[in-house]
Amino acid sequence: MAQKEYAQKLASKSSDFSQWYVEVVVRAGLADYTDIKGCMVIRPYGYTLWENMRDALDKRIKATGHENAYFPLFVPESLLKLEAEHVQGFAPECAWVTRAGNDKLEEPLAIRPTSEAIIGSIYAKWIQSYRDLPVLINQWANVVRWEKRTRLFLRTSEFLWQEGHTCHRTFDEAQEETLRMLGVYREFIETELAIPVIVGQKSESEKFAGAQLTYTVEALMADGLALQAGTSHNLGQHFAKVFDIKFLDEDNVEKHVWQTSWGVSTRLVGAIIMVHGDDAGLTLPPRVAPVQAIVIPVITTEHKAAVLEKAEALRAALVEAGVRAKVDRDESKSPGWKFNEWDLRGVPVRLEIGPKDIAKGQVCLVRRDLPDRAKKKMFVGEDEMLPTIRRLLEEIQSAMFERAREFRDRNTHAVSSYEQFREIIETRRGFVVGAWAGTAEDEAKIKEETKATLRCIPLAQPETVGNCFFTGKSAQHIAYFARAY
Amino acid sequence: MAQKEYAQKLASKSSDFSQWYVEVVVRAGLADYTDIKGCMVIRPYGYTLWENMRDALDKRIKATGHENAYFPLFVPESLLKLEAEHVQGFAPECAWVTRAGNDKLEEPLAIRPTSEAIIGSIYAKWIQSYRDLPVLINQWANVVRWEKRTRLFLRTSEFLWQEGHTCHRTFDEAQEETLRMLGVYREFIETELAIPVIVGQKSESEKFAGAQLTYTVEALMADGLALQAGTSHNLGQHFAKVFDIKFLDEDNVEKHVWQTSWGVSTRLVGAIIMVHGDDAGLTLPPRVAPVQAIVIPVITTEHKAAVLEKAEALRAALVEAGVRAKVDRDESKSPGWKFNEWDLRGVPVRLEIGPKDIAKGQVCLVRRDLPDRAKKKMFVGEDEMLPTIRRLLEEIQSAMFERAREFRDRNTHAVSSYEQFREIIETRRGFVVGAWAGTAEDEAKIKEETKATLRCIPLAQPETVGNCFFTGKSAQHIAYFARAY
Repeated sequence: MAQKEYAQKLASKSSDFSQWYVEVVVRAGLADYTDIKGCMVIRPYGYTLWENMRDALDKRIKATGHENAYFPLFVPESLLKLEAEHVQGFAPECAWVTRAGNDKLEEPLAIRPTSEAIIGSIYAKWIQSYRDLPVLINQWANVVRWEKRTRLFLRTSEFLWQEGHTCHRTFDEAQEETLRMLGVYREFIETELAIPVIVGQKSESEKFAGAQLTYTVEALMADGLALQAGTSHNLGQHFAKVFDIKFLDEDNVEKHVWQTSWGVSTRLVGAIIMVHGDDAGLTLPPRVAPVQAIVIPVITTEHKAAVLEKAEALRAALVEAGVRAKVDRDESKSPGWKFNEWDLRGVPVRLEIGPKDIAKGQVCLVRRDLPDRAKKKMFVGEDEMLPTIRRLLEEIQSAMFERAREFRDRNTHAVSSYEQFREIIETRRGFVVGAWAGTAEDEAKIKEETKATLRCIPLAQPETVGNCFFTGKSAQHIAYFARAY
Repeated sequence: MAQKEYAQKLASKSSDFSQWYVEVVVRAGLADYTDIKGCMVIRPYGYTLWENMRDALDKRIKATGHENAYFPLFVPESLLKLEAEHVQGFAPECAWVTRAGNDKLEEPLAIRPTSEAIIGSIYAKWIQSYRDLPVLINQWANVVRWEKRTRLFLRTSEFLWQEGHTCHRTFDEAQEETLRMLGVYREFIETELAIPVIVGQKSESEKFAGAQLTYTVEALMADGLALQAGTSHNLGQHFAKVFDIKFLDEDNVEKHVWQTSWGVSTRLVGAIIMVHGDDAGLTLPPRVAPVQAIVIPVITTEHKAAVLEKAEALRAALVEAGVRAKVDRDESKSPGWKFNEWDLRGVPVRLEIGPKDIAKGQVCLVRRDLPDRAKKKMFVGEDEMLPTIRRLLEEIQSAMFERAREFRDRNTHAVSSYEQFREIIETRRGFVVGAWAGTAEDEAKIKEETKATLRCIPLAQPETVGNCFFTGKSAQHIAYFARAY
């Protein structure tokens, strides 16, 4: 589809990151634009990637005692308005249903931008006693936030996500849950997506509209901008009070529940692209790659049947062993064209098989993640193919994580003055870390002057902190700043 | 949650089917009403059932060469209006977004009632050559159809479903695909849900708005009403022409593609309830049951620790062997209360374990699906537990299918006159089958007079058909009629 585009070279990642990003998304077949403002279509290759990510995270969500459910798409205006901060945060981005069939609705319905309001109103009906707690429910769903400026996967009017919504007896239990799920996100993103994250707390200005405390996992993209990869909120009793979610406790006293909510979304696909991609295109972490090994038959007219047969046999052996493998049988394209194509699509291992390889009883393997892959053809005996590919997939997964961590660390700069801060943000970007004792107004000033925002106050703090780089006051903690998506 | 309700007896299935249905849905924890008109919430137990159904069907959809993708929720009014029959069929049920934030939209957006229009407009962009065909894509999504009269799972304003949308080079290929997916539905519904179906074609009056040919799988509920369990449409070139989905064929001629679409929805959960349930509540087919075996510790104060420990060990052994098992550890409820509760929730096998059983090295097993289950306690040695439960789950699955088929056949009545037809529809309901040569007007008349509709013209036809029961004319085929959901 749209094959003519492939003739052109990709934009350069280093000189035009933005254009490179869009071209990778579209040409690799992850997603496409539509005529509906701000909405994308997730194509099969991108959706299979998302399915693998979803399944890996869903397993972890269930292993921590949660169950999935499904709540309505619509939030009546009156419900959304009950929590003041929440409506202020979300109303400007809501899409409103005002008509059904030919009738005007009595009350406009927002399409959920997030489901605290709708779920809170339902929990109020379900929960009566301390015996009903904790409620540990997650939902996989689409949500809509009407964005003025959109970007494939990173900011679209509609996106897919999961949102956990839990209720507890005490603040401490809710806090434990909030941090547990933050930890699940960290482990999931690092293990499955090979993306290292900084785990921390959001400042008052950056927290979720309606939360008491917001925690985040922050990742660094290859262009030096940060990306919020997932958030976990301790909602306190804010929503419990406005939706009247009460339980009769063991001491016979009626109390409001303590809540949490937490979510990650399809924007993580954007993070994978921006952390691991290179000038040749996408590089996918093996654990979530839709295709882990692509078999390219190197065909000559004479040996065509034998090579195709061998290619299919290798694929079958790989699939049998649990490796997601595929043969590119397209006869209208050359092997060289296919090498580039599957590099662009980020497949971790390429397997080349031609008449010479068959004669020698070998296959040729090439890693996608190494920059100078052309030089790295590995020839292994056919009987060594399976264990070698298994080992390669694991090595690639770790190597990708290590490279991303190394990049992140190299682009994390400690500062002790605002002058230094500005200089780094202007010239080198990346994470800027310093002692922080500023106010919300200080944050706003920094944002205005540098476009950098406080990404998080990391949970891991040094023993001694020193004085705030901005105010000069004695600080209690360090904070991470960056320009961000 | 809402435990007080459990004290009451369920409504009787035979004397108040409607009320019985609603009570089973709510009390078994499958779903609940919400304050949003026509929208339900699918609770964890119901959603886990849906997940198991989805996974079983998704595997079949992928095995037949389809991939999943995700298309936008919104259909611009102008797109929906392009196909005349389609908009007439769906516009009266559409929910319309007219505002976003504080701005009025230039063009109203329908929330997808189905995605032919939106997907067609996107395929037009993707498809250029015969090499791009076939396109075999499926989507799992929520859709909205604003219903005046709603019913949990069976007819709700928002529901979950899958919709396949494919494009082909020829009518024949599209027709083959249409029937292939109809066959996948039949096999899925019969194998996994233990519901026998009649496979057939819809009449002109009952076909999908915009389709050339619509096929259906029809099931019979325990109250004698039919339910359309899934449909598969050969769309011909209707949408291809209005959305201009063209390809350059091998002969260098530009042609419109041939399309299909096919879907099943959460209404299948309603079918499971209405086909298999009894006066004690839900009866779930083992293959999709969220819990296949419930372990009930029969505790005395003296042996509490030992019994709980044994119960957990049995559960662990079952889970290890791939059986979805759970222990009910609630100490505030008696074993008898729990027997009723898990019967209500439809768990296929109950495992009772008490001090006497431990002493004898045995467990007590009880099947849910048998009507006189109290009499059927099976005592088996602990080492026989696993193979016995495995065998029971298979036996239950087949027995449920056989009972449903037997019921369906007993309630399928051949007629040769309209008088007979009316009498059966009024008194016994069920499927009424007869030779049919009527027109759309005849169908409308029958519907008006009897509330019965033509469910399908079955693919399997007798060798000789005879004269139409309604018009007396010589008929080409038999047809199934029924009152339906």
